Amino acid sequence: MTLIYPNIFSILFIMSKFLININGEHFDESSAKISVFDRGFLFGDSVYESTRTFNRHPFRLSLHIERLFASALKIQLNPTLSKEEIATQVLKTIEQSPHQDIFMRIILTRGNNSDLGLDPELSSANNLIIITKEISPNPEWWLSHGLSMIFYQKQNSPSGSLPKSGNYQENIMAHKAALSQKAYDAIMVNGQGFATEGTTSNIWIIKNGVVYTPPLIDGVLEGLTRKTIFEMPRVYPIQEKSLTRQDILEADECFITSTTRNLVPVTKVESTPIGNGKPGVNTLELLKSYLQFVGQKAVF
Amino acid sequence: MTLIYPNIFSILFIMSKFLININGEHFDESSAKISVFDRGFLFGDSVYESTRTFNRHPFRLSLHIERLFASALKIQLNPTLSKEEIATQVLKTIEQSPHQDIFMRIILTRGNNSDLGLDPELSSANNLIIITKEISPNPEWWLSHGLSMIFYQKQNSPSGSLPKSGNYQENIMAHKAALSQKAYDAIMVNGQGFATEGTTSNIWIIKNGVVYTPPLIDGVLEGLTRKTIFEMPRVYPIQEKSLTRQDILEADECFITSTTRNLVPVTKVESTPIGNGKPGVNTLELLKSYLQFVGQKAVF
Repeated sequence: MTLIYPNIFSILFIMSKFLININGEHFDESSAKISVFDRGFLFGDSVYESTRTFNRHPFRLSLHIERLFASALKIQLNPTLSKEEIATQVLKTIEQSPHQDIFMRIILTRGNNSDLGLDPELSSANNLIIITKEISPNPEWWLSHGLSMIFYQKQNSPSGSLPKSGNYQENIMAHKAALSQKAYDAIMVNGQGFATEGTTSNIWIIKNGVVYTPPLIDGVLEGLTRKTIFEMPRVYPIQEKSLTRQDILEADECFITSTTRNLVPVTKVESTPIGNGKPGVNTLELLKSYLQFVGQKAVF
Repeated sequence: MTLIYPNIFSILFIMSKFLININGEHFDESSAKISVFDRGFLFGDSVYESTRTFNRHPFRLSLHIERLFASALKIQLNPTLSKEEIATQVLKTIEQSPHQDIFMRIILTRGNNSDLGLDPELSSANNLIIITKEISPNPEWWLSHGLSMIFYQKQNSPSGSLPKSGNYQENIMAHKAALSQKAYDAIMVNGQGFATEGTTSNIWIIKNGVVYTPPLIDGVLEGLTRKTIFEMPRVYPIQEKSLTRQDILEADECFITSTTRNLVPVTKVESTPIGNGKPGVNTLELLKSYLQFVGQKAVF
């Protein structure tokens, strides 16, 4: 399927919630398929990025692609596509999308295996899959009431900055545990007892006017919203610091960050209200600064 | 595609190396595809079994399906297919296969997600994929010379019996490290310094006439060949015991087991010859007993 008539395709895809780019061709959700020999499917042998657009511009695309390649390096996946080729496909799909602003999951797998073994040499060319959907605004209650979280003790606790990989089972277990306790999500805790991150977000606290988030070495994925907050003009002092469960429970304020959700207040952890149990005023102030910053800034 | 004419399909599939059953329908390797929304693809959110046939009979099928369900339980995946339904599909695919004996990878994923989130409730029905191919005989040099292995220090060291899951990246890294050192595979070592298993096999040593293999608690997948060796009439005393690197390097003999490869001697680890550096006579004796046992025994 060659995209000769983007406008016609836009009309076709407008009925579909999702628009998916597989190795350069566009599909709707019912026809977007990959081989069962794809190593992402067989072994979780893939890396990915989640990002979004603001006013049809991708949020920090070059940084996302840099991080995709950094994740690939961590699992020794040699990209057979260049950063430019990936960026071109992302931009093509944004152009093709009928939606004003979209969420994107950019997946790079080691490719299709010619046999069933683990040897990476059994695949030659990567598969690039870009799944997009219209972005939903954050529910209003997230800001008016804040989120409730639980702690989840990780079994797998490698230290150091984590790759964003297709091996996501532990995060699924953590998220499921949270949902079963009527919480929004889990704050994962590493083998040393330090809180690391949410299942798809970074975690932060504010204590005595200082903003803290765990260092990457504790086993944290370096979120680009996290990175952006470090780069923004400082509203408050910001420090990396290992955080115990106690640090979080005794914080004045707590919040999570993610590219698709920006900053969201956390008001309860393990049934303990954080601070006064309401979304923190400093958190909301930071959110305001963040939105201004990403709105002002050129998106590349 | 309904399988009304199995013989005609057998003829069509005879040209294909693989025969794949996806949710009850058969495909060749070029047409076997699953949705990019399959959670196995998105997150490695799947469990699997590898097995084989002996004379067109599946090897210990009911035990393999029991273990598939045990793996599912470990990742809190609720099967939406019964054990009987899965067995029926496996038998149907064996019947359909043009090959005398086949290798089978039976994959159960949590199913297709209706959105991109981690919540398992976003999928309703599992996907069952059975990939089969003609089984290749073990290369002769495996028995005449034995395998060379390396040690690989695991980053992720959960203790206890492991699920066979779609999160296989660490094993891929270990296998890749072995190949880059011209070894056959890696013996993985857990956080406590104990050797656990190969990347797709169990590991054993023989010392002073006693056969040892690590206990499941060290972070071992309970192989069904391993299980069968414990159940066989005893040729030698067999014990579970935590094994250090040193125990392996100083063993009289060493071997691996897997359903598809049976028993294979290991004659070198990290460039150190094991015993006299040749396939162990006791190992070969055990292999003989094993083949007799699985040949004699009814395969269910």
